[in-house]
Amino acid sequence: MRLALIGVGLIGGSFARAARAAGRVNWIIGFDTEPDALRRALELHVIDDVAMSAAQAARDADLVMLASPVGTMPEIFRAIAGALTPKNIVTDVGSVKGFVIDAARNAIDRNFARFVPGHPIAGSELAGVEHAKSDLFRNALFVGTPHERADEAATQFVEQLWRDLGCRIERMAAKEHDAIFAALSHLPHLLAYALSAYIAQEPDAGRKLALAGPSFRDFTRIARSSPAIWRDICLANAPALQKELAAYVAQLEQLRAILAVADGPALQEAFERAAALNDQVLS
Amino acid sequence: MRLALIGVGLIGGSFARAARAAGRVNWIIGFDTEPDALRRALELHVIDDVAMSAAQAARDADLVMLASPVGTMPEIFRAIAGALTPKNIVTDVGSVKGFVIDAARNAIDRNFARFVPGHPIAGSELAGVEHAKSDLFRNALFVGTPHERADEAATQFVEQLWRDLGCRIERMAAKEHDAIFAALSHLPHLLAYALSAYIAQEPDAGRKLALAGPSFRDFTRIARSSPAIWRDICLANAPALQKELAAYVAQLEQLRAILAVADGPALQEAFERAAALNDQVLS
Repeated sequence: MRLALIGVGLIGGSFARAARAAGRVNWIIGFDTEPDALRRALELHVIDDVAMSAAQAARDADLVMLASPVGTMPEIFRAIAGALTPKNIVTDVGSVKGFVIDAARNAIDRNFARFVPGHPIAGSELAGVEHAKSDLFRNALFVGTPHERADEAATQFVEQLWRDLGCRIERMAAKEHDAIFAALSHLPHLLAYALSAYIAQEPDAGRKLALAGPSFRDFTRIARSSPAIWRDICLANAPALQKELAAYVAQLEQLRAILAVADGPALQEAFERAAALNDQVLS
Repeated sequence: MRLALIGVGLIGGSFARAARAAGRVNWIIGFDTEPDALRRALELHVIDDVAMSAAQAARDADLVMLASPVGTMPEIFRAIAGALTPKNIVTDVGSVKGFVIDAARNAIDRNFARFVPGHPIAGSELAGVEHAKSDLFRNALFVGTPHERADEAATQFVEQLWRDLGCRIERMAAKEHDAIFAALSHLPHLLAYALSAYIAQEPDAGRKLALAGPSFRDFTRIARSSPAIWRDICLANAPALQKELAAYVAQLEQLRAILAVADGPALQEAFERAAALNDQVLS
């Protein structure tokens, strides 16, 4: 299989490495708006050839994988629309699915049935193709969100590919996906960014940092993630994220009220509810 | 040196193991209100003997270490007050210093000069003496917060002990300590508890949990910490924590406003400020 990889960062690079290691692709052409990333991907043998444009990459490929920031995808769909033939399958790894599906529907109408939206639940705060790993998706979850005109054969082709990379597969509606990951992923990133941004703006930020312990480092690790990627995700999923953020702020206001009256039992009850949930997640 | 360890949990147990490994103590008597913890500590050779009360433990010790939840400390100071002699040094590892110093001043007035308040910046979400490790404090920071009547020799004795356990030492005023750790530690714990508690109360909590990825797990790891310990910390440092929480909520409201108008550059700017800070902390 010939793969066109549009966006050669951590996720795209890891997908390329993993698909090659699994024997599922034998030729990969890459495109990225950052020439440096493209050059590194070639040097690291993540890709076999570089394209001068997204359309050129797509032209000769069986599978076109969009692995660039979500905000760039509408433009990429428009760029490749003319190059696609009925044999192409197009897929993506965007963290927001409704936004990407809408962009595909608008731009590649003729090939829309063979656009397979997906989201592998894996990643790292270490961005860039130099951190790409062939086992990033091993034992991860791949969420497919087939749209209203999805070609079942194309969907199954992409799902089998992720299965071969070590993923378990789950399907859900894009709307459900976007609501769930607003709570599980987009909100925690926003909260970690907010804490770091708040502390950074304090006059004693340097002093505080020198004293930070392991809990602060763990909590804010995800706020090292790429600002551009997460800006795009937050904007593309803004309605769902705003809903989660409002509910979370309400939860904080409850804790503030509990603290204000020093209600120990209520505070402990809230913490116990949380700890019980986390034992479930982490065990 | 003879050590009385009041509270044989993760931190107390790790302190005992580390002090013994460093050759700084040759006999340890433990007391805990949980008989099970005390029995396990004896079985694991963390302590050499068990006391029937805090006062009994303190009676024959050179150093009395309070390593129980912050909320229990006022009662412990009152319990040991009559058993202390002028030779005893008393110290603690509480995460809130102003509260503990006030409690000591009120209860052990005669020995107050030789009460050395301290806070080693180390820990784990895995509570209990069975997780105690002799290297928990290696390369950690020990913050001492000498009070207005501190005996310098006693302070230096305790600091040297922590240095021998692998810590670097920093002194600051209790008020500064409590303000800084409200931001760096108490607030992140509260935020992680709040996120988990919020998600736990949603009707689809089980469904969401099954889909949680690594970023959610990292973010909420600290919300597995002991609810009773963190209830005490939050209550004992309530004024500073409430101030930090209010400032953080204001930061979230700014991000909500940015999201509402889809202001990409402002969002990216906030994320970049955060990511830059985290690169500093983590590198």
